[in-house]
Amino acid sequence: MKLASLKQGRDGRLVVVSDDLAWYADAGHICATLQAALDDWAQVGPALELLAVDLRNEAIPRARFHEHDAAAPLPRAYQWLDGSAYVNHVALVRQARGAELPESFWHDPLMYQGGSDGFLGARDAIPLADEDWGCDLEGEVVVVTGDVPLGATREQALDAIRLVGLTNDVSLRNLIPAELAKGFGFLQAKPASAFSPVFVTPEALGDWWRDGKLHRRLLVEVNGAPFGRADAGEDMTFDFGTLIAHAAKTRALGAGTIVGSGTVSNRDAEGGPGRPIADGGVGYSCLAELRTVETIQSGAAQTPYLGTGDTVRIWMEDDRHHPIFGTIEQTVG
Amino acid sequence: MKLASLKQGRDGRLVVVSDDLAWYADAGHICATLQAALDDWAQVGPALELLAVDLRNEAIPRARFHEHDAAAPLPRAYQWLDGSAYVNHVALVRQARGAELPESFWHDPLMYQGGSDGFLGARDAIPLADEDWGCDLEGEVVVVTGDVPLGATREQALDAIRLVGLTNDVSLRNLIPAELAKGFGFLQAKPASAFSPVFVTPEALGDWWRDGKLHRRLLVEVNGAPFGRADAGEDMTFDFGTLIAHAAKTRALGAGTIVGSGTVSNRDAEGGPGRPIADGGVGYSCLAELRTVETIQSGAAQTPYLGTGDTVRIWMEDDRHHPIFGTIEQTVG
Repeated sequence: MKLASLKQGRDGRLVVVSDDLAWYADAGHICATLQAALDDWAQVGPALELLAVDLRNEAIPRARFHEHDAAAPLPRAYQWLDGSAYVNHVALVRQARGAELPESFWHDPLMYQGGSDGFLGARDAIPLADEDWGCDLEGEVVVVTGDVPLGATREQALDAIRLVGLTNDVSLRNLIPAELAKGFGFLQAKPASAFSPVFVTPEALGDWWRDGKLHRRLLVEVNGAPFGRADAGEDMTFDFGTLIAHAAKTRALGAGTIVGSGTVSNRDAEGGPGRPIADGGVGYSCLAELRTVETIQSGAAQTPYLGTGDTVRIWMEDDRHHPIFGTIEQTVG
Repeated sequence: MKLASLKQGRDGRLVVVSDDLAWYADAGHICATLQAALDDWAQVGPALELLAVDLRNEAIPRARFHEHDAAAPLPRAYQWLDGSAYVNHVALVRQARGAELPESFWHDPLMYQGGSDGFLGARDAIPLADEDWGCDLEGEVVVVTGDVPLGATREQALDAIRLVGLTNDVSLRNLIPAELAKGFGFLQAKPASAFSPVFVTPEALGDWWRDGKLHRRLLVEVNGAPFGRADAGEDMTFDFGTLIAHAAKTRALGAGTIVGSGTVSNRDAEGGPGRPIADGGVGYSCLAELRTVETIQSGAAQTPYLGTGDTVRIWMEDDRHHPIFGTIEQTVG
């Protein structure tokens, strides 16, 4: 089942979307918003699944689904927790600034509490008041949970995953060092993230979803050029069950909690830093990683951060090259 | 006007509470929840104010208000941002561990993004799975905002303040050093906070609310003994307008954002570390500050953190010694 929220009010209007993303059926008679559905998933989830079957069978009224009409599936959420599960990415960033990677980073996940009071839709512009802030994209996989009890195990956490999607976790790189030094986490450095037009149930992903990971390539373009195609199922040191259990160690998590993977990143097949796609590598899911590789190789970053008018695209394809979650496609400014 | 949410479902049931906290009038015919009221404050706020007048005049049905029936006024929120506005507190903590206070801390606020997916009511127990985590209270002032635009000035931020209240920002002190070292902010170290039974409009606070600060003593008891009576209007380096504007530098803040002051803390009148109330001082609003003073004076902390069965009370009084916001009164475990 694929779900989206059409732009309407602060919380959008819940719709069920066809597998090919061409059509939607209104779900308002079942549940007004996705948050309300997550609040009462045991009742509402099966009713939405029946609606999805009817939509597939063309047994109910349907209308054309346009991705630019979609808000973030949760236009605002009660919680957004972003991990750094691809430790390869963290190791590269550390290497570039000559800092050692603490051994603990391989078994104790990095995760920050992100702002969740207002997210961007997949086609919304990225607001940027100052180019000197160093605006970057971050292509990530996310999951949405139901209620997770305090002290949940990895297995309980995996059972609580209701939906899977993609995000562009917009980052202001030049504001990060000062906030890291303060130790209180990211506040100004992490403005609103954007999410894929639809979120998908794990069941509908079939074999692509296994072991708490999404086994598909994350495709990233910057200004129309291929930039990344890392496999989200590879080199993910912490699966989503582990990330969720980490967050639930000292507190319960409410339904509608969004948990992010951190920037998807693969080790290079030959062992060194990842290569650009043009050089036969899988590329990158954020500019910072390429800049890091440039720094390691030549002493300085060459690729600039995003400026006004730059565009980014982030998506994932099925075997017929159709986007699974729709496409995040944003212009800066 | 004083507002509360009686326990009901995930978001409570909005009521208007009398100035003396003895009575409430149901607000359901105007607005079901406090979040919905904040979403549409220009319309709903004045209607609630009229209801408060009717309640004061005994012109409408009313019922007894019991603080133990109150959930947090926002039982869950889209954003919880906690500052450290009383830099005296930060300076003491640093002094105790022999770390210098960066000069920037006097003009660049510390603030973290806190978990907001589920808050505790004022009389709810504090869940604590492991006493070794070092459970502490933190008595703070909070405000709730309407929509705040990206790049808001301090004056715009002050205009966006809708409600004022108190919190017990529960902290797990022994988990903080490791999370500070990771730089990604607090996740496991900050379980659910509790809030005062009622939140109050700035207008209803009269002269106590001025310059973006709340000029009343914050009263704190631990296990029935007086522990703190610091004046929240004193030594607050960053007022709420400045804190909100800091958060809004790179992104808009959604209606219903809660912003905290950080632990209320006053300098000692004689210049040294603050003294306990029993020694003529104003005491403390968290155990960590007393433990810090003990460490500075004797080389080691003597006061233990909270264990199962310990109680904390946090409140503020009007001139007739009636609680303004009701009383946070919690038992651990």
